[in-house]
Amino acid sequence: MRVLILGGDGYLGWPTAMHLCAEGHEVAVVDNYLRRRLCREEDVDPLYEVPNLHERVRLWKANTGHEIRLFIGDLTEWDVVETVFRAFEPEGIVHYAEQPAAPYSMLNRRAAVLTIRNNLLTTANVIFAVREFCPGAHIVKLGTMGEYGTPNIDIEEGWLDVEHKGRKERFLYPRQAGSLYHTTKIMDTDLLWFYVRTWGLRVTDLMQGPVYGIFTRETLEDERLLPFFNYDELFGTVLNRFVVQAVAGYPLTVYGKGGQTRGYLNIIDTLNCVRLSLENTPEVGSLRIFNQFTETFTVMELAEKVREAGKEIGLDVAIQHIDNPRKELEEHYYNPTHTGLLELGLEPHFLTVDVLVLMLEFVKRHEERIDEGKIFRRVSW
Amino acid sequence: MRVLILGGDGYLGWPTAMHLCAEGHEVAVVDNYLRRRLCREEDVDPLYEVPNLHERVRLWKANTGHEIRLFIGDLTEWDVVETVFRAFEPEGIVHYAEQPAAPYSMLNRRAAVLTIRNNLLTTANVIFAVREFCPGAHIVKLGTMGEYGTPNIDIEEGWLDVEHKGRKERFLYPRQAGSLYHTTKIMDTDLLWFYVRTWGLRVTDLMQGPVYGIFTRETLEDERLLPFFNYDELFGTVLNRFVVQAVAGYPLTVYGKGGQTRGYLNIIDTLNCVRLSLENTPEVGSLRIFNQFTETFTVMELAEKVREAGKEIGLDVAIQHIDNPRKELEEHYYNPTHTGLLELGLEPHFLTVDVLVLMLEFVKRHEERIDEGKIFRRVSW
Repeated sequence: MRVLILGGDGYLGWPTAMHLCAEGHEVAVVDNYLRRRLCREEDVDPLYEVPNLHERVRLWKANTGHEIRLFIGDLTEWDVVETVFRAFEPEGIVHYAEQPAAPYSMLNRRAAVLTIRNNLLTTANVIFAVREFCPGAHIVKLGTMGEYGTPNIDIEEGWLDVEHKGRKERFLYPRQAGSLYHTTKIMDTDLLWFYVRTWGLRVTDLMQGPVYGIFTRETLEDERLLPFFNYDELFGTVLNRFVVQAVAGYPLTVYGKGGQTRGYLNIIDTLNCVRLSLENTPEVGSLRIFNQFTETFTVMELAEKVREAGKEIGLDVAIQHIDNPRKELEEHYYNPTHTGLLELGLEPHFLTVDVLVLMLEFVKRHEERIDEGKIFRRVSW
Repeated sequence: MRVLILGGDGYLGWPTAMHLCAEGHEVAVVDNYLRRRLCREEDVDPLYEVPNLHERVRLWKANTGHEIRLFIGDLTEWDVVETVFRAFEPEGIVHYAEQPAAPYSMLNRRAAVLTIRNNLLTTANVIFAVREFCPGAHIVKLGTMGEYGTPNIDIEEGWLDVEHKGRKERFLYPRQAGSLYHTTKIMDTDLLWFYVRTWGLRVTDLMQGPVYGIFTRETLEDERLLPFFNYDELFGTVLNRFVVQAVAGYPLTVYGKGGQTRGYLNIIDTLNCVRLSLENTPEVGSLRIFNQFTETFTVMELAEKVREAGKEIGLDVAIQHIDNPRKELEEHYYNPTHTGLLELGLEPHFLTVDVLVLMLEFVKRHEERIDEGKIFRRVSW
């Protein structure tokens, strides 16, 4: 399948490109280096240097013989979108091209407006491009479990059957998120669902939990192909950040009571979820929604797992509760369904102590690059 | 109260400004003439000429002695927002500053992107301006009944209590709209609801049905103060358009079966709803939602009412069913609650034959300005 990956330079975008290419798909990537620019502006470099996208594509070709097509450009600009879609004629589109960080979106007005503008105008352009250049192509959109928030009832897989005063209706599961970033993902879902109903688009919206991990099959032989690994409060997801804090001897910063529960998954599972979604195309005119995670943990459970893994390699990991800088429930009901991707054949990679030990050992090799001052920025909302 | 009206040049914005001023409030208006520009670009002039906003403000002052402060500028630009909010220090904000037409939003990509950009970036700027310059000020936002769509269960007033597998939660009533324009209003609600929860904003979101009418108390003595009156398919609301079609001898164009039911209200009631909302401020940290309409009608019922009123003044009005150019249900369940504004004291002006006769007679005086070629543009979705 010809698969176009929007945001192909990102933490998930680049590993997805290599994985789909290795699995025999014809792959192109687009990126405007937004993530790199924002990290530079906010002075939060990843743990190790990552070659630019041209270099990554060259390395991949040298190692495997496979070609990944590359476009550099901003997908909020229609001429970029038109050039890419005309040139590549995708059959599947993986849409990662969004400002991806909740704390960044809460930093200030400029960051908020950038997030709204980038995420919504890109999604709108993708919808119009599919309609104009490749109707019938399958859009795989990365949403987030955070769209649902933490309701007091079970979280179903995208939809909710409501019985009310003796009548019935099926709705998009009601969404209420905990950050502006997550709210733009709700808006993306609103937009996609409208055009699915109106124009018969073919969309899979993946409600993904926080991802952790570094290694994927395609990076085992060449570490220069590894994804970004941010350990700062702005762009680092919680478990990746805890691993770096453990190595640095910086106490694991648990916000409030630490009872915040989320669904997590290994980066390897993300790639498989996206590939399984692409290889099992939904019908034209349907919005298919999967809840994309493999296990749920509280923040305290994550911290304790990291402490346990640290002990295995002689690290004495401290856990520190700090005042919660966010507006969120610190203890709550959380019972989300997640059967759709398992039914498509997903074989989860669970969060074992071994997995954490491998991450800790890898981070330890880059210990000299850790700048403790970058870990915690005190972004609050 | 110092009330800032965003979109103060519009069909509802200008009458609201005069009404609140006449009721003793200190009023300022902001507009960038977006609506006028779009009408000019699409070649759909209103039925009669309307003085520019500077002239309207001068006329109002000459007639009443009251001053309305005026700012011209684009509220998607932060420097405009900052200037206005710093200069006027509003206590209440009425936010009408949106691209207001569903058919326009479905015209093409440019119109769609303009609608998303204008509506969301303006709402975001308003939120940030309130937080920065007048925390505690009350935002009265014009939403639309169209956010709810036409679900098969009763439409409650903004919120839905759900019982699911033995547990309970109260959600924003699930929304699924019938046009891109309506979808941007859903996104506005998403955005406001997030910042209400996070920053304790004070917001009233008015889910308004289609408005009809021309006259308000403040325009009775000087027709130069009348609002825009569009009769084209892009910017003319259905009943206003039918009245013009009746006068022009152009058959009333009912889409499909005409069983599409919506909640309607007279423009006089809109002004009272907005005023009552302002004068009864909700608590800090709350999103108050009212369903703002007074009666529900099917499109066929509206057409028949216009025919009946036409007969009173000797017009022979034809009704023509045409293929529905929109994706919508032509027959459906529709039972929306609307008690909140009545409880605040709204005294509805219902749609009587007399009301329609007055509208028909007024439009007849402008008959020579009707251009039949502008009525129907065949925008389809």
